[in-house]
Amino acid sequence: MPSTVPTRHPERATSSDRGALDALLDATVLAHVGFVADGHPVVLPTGFARDRDRLVIHGSTGSRWLRTLAAGAEASVAVTVLEGIVVARTGFESSFHYRSAVLFGRFVELDGDDKVAALDRITDRLVPGRAAEVRPSTKKEVAATLALAMPIATWSLKAAAEWPDDLPDDIAGPAWAGVVPMRTVYGPAVDAPDLLPGRELPGSVKRLIGD
Amino acid sequence: MPSTVPTRHPERATSSDRGALDALLDATVLAHVGFVADGHPVVLPTGFARDRDRLVIHGSTGSRWLRTLAAGAEASVAVTVLEGIVVARTGFESSFHYRSAVLFGRFVELDGDDKVAALDRITDRLVPGRAAEVRPSTKKEVAATLALAMPIATWSLKAAAEWPDDLPDDIAGPAWAGVVPMRTVYGPAVDAPDLLPGRELPGSVKRLIGD
Repeated sequence: MPSTVPTRHPERATSSDRGALDALLDATVLAHVGFVADGHPVVLPTGFARDRDRLVIHGSTGSRWLRTLAAGAEASVAVTVLEGIVVARTGFESSFHYRSAVLFGRFVELDGDDKVAALDRITDRLVPGRAAEVRPSTKKEVAATLALAMPIATWSLKAAAEWPDDLPDDIAGPAWAGVVPMRTVYGPAVDAPDLLPGRELPGSVKRLIGD
Repeated sequence: MPSTVPTRHPERATSSDRGALDALLDATVLAHVGFVADGHPVVLPTGFARDRDRLVIHGSTGSRWLRTLAAGAEASVAVTVLEGIVVARTGFESSFHYRSAVLFGRFVELDGDDKVAALDRITDRLVPGRAAEVRPSTKKEVAATLALAMPIATWSLKAAAEWPDDLPDDIAGPAWAGVVPMRTVYGPAVDAPDLLPGRELPGSVKRLIGD
């Protein structure tokens, strides 16, 4: 059952279920990484992939914040998926259906075959199956990229999938209550302006957009 | 034009356009707040609303992290919207269409009428028009809620809306390239199990789900 069809009034759950964590980490490509730079907190968005027991991120070797993380700065990584709006009979009881994980640790820089495999993993998370459709990365491309990994070791996971929890007087009142599911949809795909004739939409993109 | 129909090969833009910042802050209800707790970086997700020249967030008075922020901890707030996947002819050139803002500052606790108005603003950001459809918050509800505001003063804004930027040899190759737009859709709405007869779907929810 999707989380948008909740059971009645369960508690917001904090889970230690690694399978549930992995399901969340595999449900989105966006993470927010927090660290301390010159004594100040910084949060930045980044694409990421779960690669077995670690999170992998990447970017240009010229990225200052990636180099800060590569140097061993302590990091906090939040991954959040909003799955619905709980429309209660009051503002006070209104909230979200969501899944959210926060992971803590330090990133390490990847190299060699491990780095290449991690970069392919990120490509495949953006568009599943895409890595096998394109040529391998060149040595120059790999050298221009910083790839970092953080072990999935210290984390917390929360999920909320409740019905509105209104008071009896409010339930008896005139207001509607329920849940409005939210989801991300992809497509339709748009050809690049420089696409040459005969390059058809690949299987990976067709699957992503449900074509 | 939507950002998913980009011009050819523009640079990724860093903008100081306050109107563009507000447009992003009004395009999503999810923010990630970073701060330092006991010397460690922490990132947490939260709903938020832009209220004129400030961001407002809220939660239970029992929330330890909200009380940390209310006590004046330095904060970094990231707001990110993914708008598409740039499917290049190589993994290296693949990326996102996105808009992302990072704001820096300190939150202050709100009280009195200002607090009540800020809470209504958050309710209206979840479901526009909802605050006018429900009864006002009670004094008890307002007292149980902590509402914080951070001025929109120090921030950076980035937007990427590029076509794939492949090399001539890759353009001549067999791979497809283009952009796959992403968007969030709402609905259909699901009645709460305890909904009494005659409480019809309100205008606010109908507009949200495009009904």
